[in-house]
Amino acid sequence: MKKILVNNSGGVDSTTLVAKAVKKYGKENIATVTFFYGQKHQKEIECAKNIAKYYGIKNYLLDISNVLKESKCSLMASSNEEVIKMSYADQIKTFGEGKVSTYVPFRNGLILSSCAALAQSLWEKEECEIWYGAHADDAAGQAYADCSLTFVKAMNKAINIGTYGLVKVVAPFVKKNKAAIVKEGLRLEVPYHLTWSCYNGGEKACGKCGTCIDRLEAFRQNNAIDPIEYEEKGNEI
Amino acid sequence: MKKILVNNSGGVDSTTLVAKAVKKYGKENIATVTFFYGQKHQKEIECAKNIAKYYGIKNYLLDISNVLKESKCSLMASSNEEVIKMSYADQIKTFGEGKVSTYVPFRNGLILSSCAALAQSLWEKEECEIWYGAHADDAAGQAYADCSLTFVKAMNKAINIGTYGLVKVVAPFVKKNKAAIVKEGLRLEVPYHLTWSCYNGGEKACGKCGTCIDRLEAFRQNNAIDPIEYEEKGNEI
Repeated sequence: MKKILVNNSGGVDSTTLVAKAVKKYGKENIATVTFFYGQKHQKEIECAKNIAKYYGIKNYLLDISNVLKESKCSLMASSNEEVIKMSYADQIKTFGEGKVSTYVPFRNGLILSSCAALAQSLWEKEECEIWYGAHADDAAGQAYADCSLTFVKAMNKAINIGTYGLVKVVAPFVKKNKAAIVKEGLRLEVPYHLTWSCYNGGEKACGKCGTCIDRLEAFRQNNAIDPIEYEEKGNEI
Repeated sequence: MKKILVNNSGGVDSTTLVAKAVKKYGKENIATVTFFYGQKHQKEIECAKNIAKYYGIKNYLLDISNVLKESKCSLMASSNEEVIKMSYADQIKTFGEGKVSTYVPFRNGLILSSCAALAQSLWEKEECEIWYGAHADDAAGQAYADCSLTFVKAMNKAINIGTYGLVKVVAPFVKKNKAAIVKEGLRLEVPYHLTWSCYNGGEKACGKCGTCIDRLEAFRQNNAIDPIEYEEKGNEI
């Protein structure tokens, strides 16, 4: 049976991906991997660990922070800049199309390459797939160039060639928006209470950064309640 | 002026690349980067540092060993396996086409992705190129899939898309063999006495591993003497 390495950041999209992979291939063929890239808080790493425990699968933690030590992105612990409190859509309206302030230099390319290295280390002679939670909202307006369909296709080609045809990149949500992902996740009974998306590492999610706003909106569109706690739920309160 | 990040492993090919880049773009536009990936010895890291000093340019050291900690490749410090003492050509003859025992899982893809992340961190809004020393001998018989022309092209596309069109991968030697590279390097007066290629970390190069054999042969084909010291020079002695 094919092996699946799911890149799980502890957030909504990639945790839905874990549920989808477990349902399709069975937990004995799945492992997850989570990255410490130098971010300001490690809540998502704890969440990814708990999600793996929930599904009874192995979670690998890889540290790529050394590679990103020169980055000045506002998500990084080394940056004094605060994470902007504005939705991606509003950031694009305000600053124009292109890179958002939370873009970490080629982070997702680095993450996919690291997944390929790990998959080839674990399953040297077996076919395997890297499942990657990129989705349409993150790629919209070129906010994150490393979430687009063309990027996923190019990385898949490079990884497939560089691993002697053994490793593929699969991005089941690349054409879906976050609301559609949550819809699928609710059907799959994803333990969303174990997830974390907020860019700030407070006790509760801030409710105001780009990713909190998007997450709350995705649940709202499904007439569902996001089970995690928030300081403030954006415009709702 | 365009910025150039040369991936320098301290060996013959990538040091010739440094010389070529300095000549073409001037040392003020060049930096080099070297990787610790968990290899058995760190001689090449010292060499890369000295080469950068020789040219008066900055050398960055990035540690990606955490990503490769599960690899069982014979080059890794965590492996008890000895590095095979046979030329690549003989390995292909003996074991057939395909992966050689010194292939580190997707290492070069990981290295190129790390170069892209570093280049985007250092020169956020400037066009830059990653210079990569892949050459025809390493790709022959699919010894290293991550040194082939198709691999370089695919990585270039992924990196270019993922960095909003700012970073390119350039592999000036991808169609050349090692002898042709040394020929160019002798003309450029590359300080080959500062380089290191041997997979084993002895005081002198072993002269018997795949990379020593290839290196000695490349100098011989140019009727030149390799200026570093060897335990034994392969068949010559």
